[in-house]
Amino acid sequence: MTRKKQLIIIGGVAAGVKAAARARRVNQDLDITLFESGADVSYSACGEPYYISGVIPKREHLVIRRPEEFLKDNIKINIYHQVTSINSDTQTLVAVDTTTRQSKQYHYDQLIIATGAQAVIPPIPGCDLQGVVSLRTLNDSDRLRQLLLDKQSIQAVIVGSGYIGLELAESLKRRGAEVSVIDFCHQIFPRIDPLMSELIQKKLLEKGVNVFLNESIDSIQGQKQTVESIKTQSGQILPCNLVIMACGVKPNVSLALQSGIKLGSTGAIAVNQKLQTNVENIYAAGDCVESRHRISGLPAWLPLGDIANLQGRVAGENTAGGNARFPGILGTSIFRCFDLQIGMTGLTDLEIKDQNIDCCETVIHSRDRARYYPDGQTLSIKLTAQKSNGKILGAQAVGQGGVAKIIDISATALLGNLSCFDLEFADLAYAPPFSPVLSPMIIAASELRKKINL
Amino acid sequence: MTRKKQLIIIGGVAAGVKAAARARRVNQDLDITLFESGADVSYSACGEPYYISGVIPKREHLVIRRPEEFLKDNIKINIYHQVTSINSDTQTLVAVDTTTRQSKQYHYDQLIIATGAQAVIPPIPGCDLQGVVSLRTLNDSDRLRQLLLDKQSIQAVIVGSGYIGLELAESLKRRGAEVSVIDFCHQIFPRIDPLMSELIQKKLLEKGVNVFLNESIDSIQGQKQTVESIKTQSGQILPCNLVIMACGVKPNVSLALQSGIKLGSTGAIAVNQKLQTNVENIYAAGDCVESRHRISGLPAWLPLGDIANLQGRVAGENTAGGNARFPGILGTSIFRCFDLQIGMTGLTDLEIKDQNIDCCETVIHSRDRARYYPDGQTLSIKLTAQKSNGKILGAQAVGQGGVAKIIDISATALLGNLSCFDLEFADLAYAPPFSPVLSPMIIAASELRKKINL
Repeated sequence: MTRKKQLIIIGGVAAGVKAAARARRVNQDLDITLFESGADVSYSACGEPYYISGVIPKREHLVIRRPEEFLKDNIKINIYHQVTSINSDTQTLVAVDTTTRQSKQYHYDQLIIATGAQAVIPPIPGCDLQGVVSLRTLNDSDRLRQLLLDKQSIQAVIVGSGYIGLELAESLKRRGAEVSVIDFCHQIFPRIDPLMSELIQKKLLEKGVNVFLNESIDSIQGQKQTVESIKTQSGQILPCNLVIMACGVKPNVSLALQSGIKLGSTGAIAVNQKLQTNVENIYAAGDCVESRHRISGLPAWLPLGDIANLQGRVAGENTAGGNARFPGILGTSIFRCFDLQIGMTGLTDLEIKDQNIDCCETVIHSRDRARYYPDGQTLSIKLTAQKSNGKILGAQAVGQGGVAKIIDISATALLGNLSCFDLEFADLAYAPPFSPVLSPMIIAASELRKKINL
Repeated sequence: MTRKKQLIIIGGVAAGVKAAARARRVNQDLDITLFESGADVSYSACGEPYYISGVIPKREHLVIRRPEEFLKDNIKINIYHQVTSINSDTQTLVAVDTTTRQSKQYHYDQLIIATGAQAVIPPIPGCDLQGVVSLRTLNDSDRLRQLLLDKQSIQAVIVGSGYIGLELAESLKRRGAEVSVIDFCHQIFPRIDPLMSELIQKKLLEKGVNVFLNESIDSIQGQKQTVESIKTQSGQILPCNLVIMACGVKPNVSLALQSGIKLGSTGAIAVNQKLQTNVENIYAAGDCVESRHRISGLPAWLPLGDIANLQGRVAGENTAGGNARFPGILGTSIFRCFDLQIGMTGLTDLEIKDQNIDCCETVIHSRDRARYYPDGQTLSIKLTAQKSNGKILGAQAVGQGGVAKIIDISATALLGNLSCFDLEFADLAYAPPFSPVLSPMIIAASELRKKINL
């Protein structure tokens, strides 16, 4: 009897478990073991803001598959196991059971690193007080929910206006909190173009969220593990009893670094399209991995759940003997903040500027269905194309309806290398409950074409 | 002073008025005159089923622009004017004012024929009774609404299960009617593939609509202008006091034919990409025009409001001195029947069979958002690709949510000549309120890829 090949996966939130499942489907003979340092595997981190708000009532709703459910696919899941070192010469690793502190060595034939990313906590005075939290794991969510339940009234300061900060602004408002959002940038949601950012800021103000821009946090004051206020770098004091650190994430790469695995220019693990690292038989997938931006061709790091899932499938397939390739990302993302939908795909203004591309852009304001049809919503679309040939470079949309559809059409157009000339005559689905007679996408493409014709 | 160039447009529902508006925007010096045989111009025929149901409460909501509103753009609208002949040698036409019966000759430099389409009324005994109606113009809607208001209770038979028949099934049920749908075909909504049709039929039955397939209407019985029953060709008698003829439409081409304008193989007016007919200085646009199907390359006639609008823009631009081209259609359409959304794009099973294309298909059942997120809906997607290279040929979707987005992604993929290999790694917009972590589009593409890999 030949020894079964050992596939070991480090990390079990999204990419890791997807890789395990795919590997099992492709190859019934593999021995598959997964180590997760935390308490949970296979959960939707993206759903956490809605668990905080109460829209999703129970923790278990976010759990897709419990560890024991993986056993029926003969996938061994070890929670509370921290992998502390990898020896790529001997193809072994050491994992510590953090509940017993016992460590053990394991052999692998193929290894997938899916260690994810972690919240960046700026090292400021008071950041270790009990009322200072970040949101990443399910346990983070539990902690934040408990803090909200324990307090009579909440005055929250959210540090950072990325999508997690903005989703939480909604979640906390739904819980009756007073909410302030602080960002060091001159605009809300720094990744989006300024015009679109203004629409988000307007919504925050309309919903009673205080907004502080060009501002960062100097220190957090408190007593007996309780937050009392924050001081900003410009010297403002904001009374509060909850501080949420939503100032970004960084890839978990220390284990990879120690093991001789190369990082890319973004600081995340460098991989090829097969998701192989520079070290033989070691793959990486998910939030710890750098991708290639399919429009710019440049390295890009955008840790998002759908990309982690796609990469997990690729790594799982390849370690099980397949030959899948992850072709890169378009920079697509979407989130909701109150009743505003905010989406983007392709290159942003800043990326276009960085690459010295001569471009044209248009912004249109439209509706998501026929004007006369009830319950229609408005949306604004920004569409950008290369000036020389009209090729779409990026699209952003903000509005109360229809944003996801516009972004998905745009992302597909980017995938197909389409121009505004193509999109102006796209044959999109029209009926009064679903779209205006000419889709806002067509209107935007048409407006852009006029500018490029000039 | 040179004489102003005369642009005359025949027909003012969608393509005609769009052409007038675009021509005016491009060229301020044109003299623009539009003749419309009916009472109204510039209205949304597609909204009529919702006016019948009461979802749209008032007739005027469907009117986009009244005749007098065109005057401020110096576009002369003549309603109740029937153009009876065109002389392309002298570049003149004769229009009759149907209110005064006076006729007058007009000179044109450029002419656009946008005469639209009309309902097919099978010439069966009783089809001229008062309770037998079809739905095409706003006046048809008024008539049908009045019939519904006049009766205590409605027993309606809808002849034909195309999208108008099925939209009206919903409208009439909302008005409390008993509804039966008859189709000579063996399935509901003959244009869609059988598997998808079954889902629509199931919904009709669930909503209490009687369905008669492989059946057509033999005669209508009635007295004193009142419908009492219909007899089917198989000999069934269905008591009813309303018969709706929704068995299809045909292009209004008699004027064009008399004027020496060639029709295409579909029976609609043949045009080139600039929407020129075979006769110099005569263009045609909208429901009376044949298009090229962009996937099959074959002539296609699919009279839909969005295509009419796109073509109106092209004809308007070109008659005003521009150089626009209409590249063809993908066969995209969508409609709603009760809470079911039904959409399709690209080639159908029958079209693929007709063209002897070797294809692969998959049907998946998915949801329109993360499973744990409230108010998600289910949908079924059928995706078809060419077997040799995985190129997408068509997509159909039926479900309670998310159909329009899937169809628009698919239509854009068809426009970009994408394959299931491309779509499997599409970077689409994900957040729990908007999509499952992997879009149903990605799942469908992935399933299809597996079949093609074999």
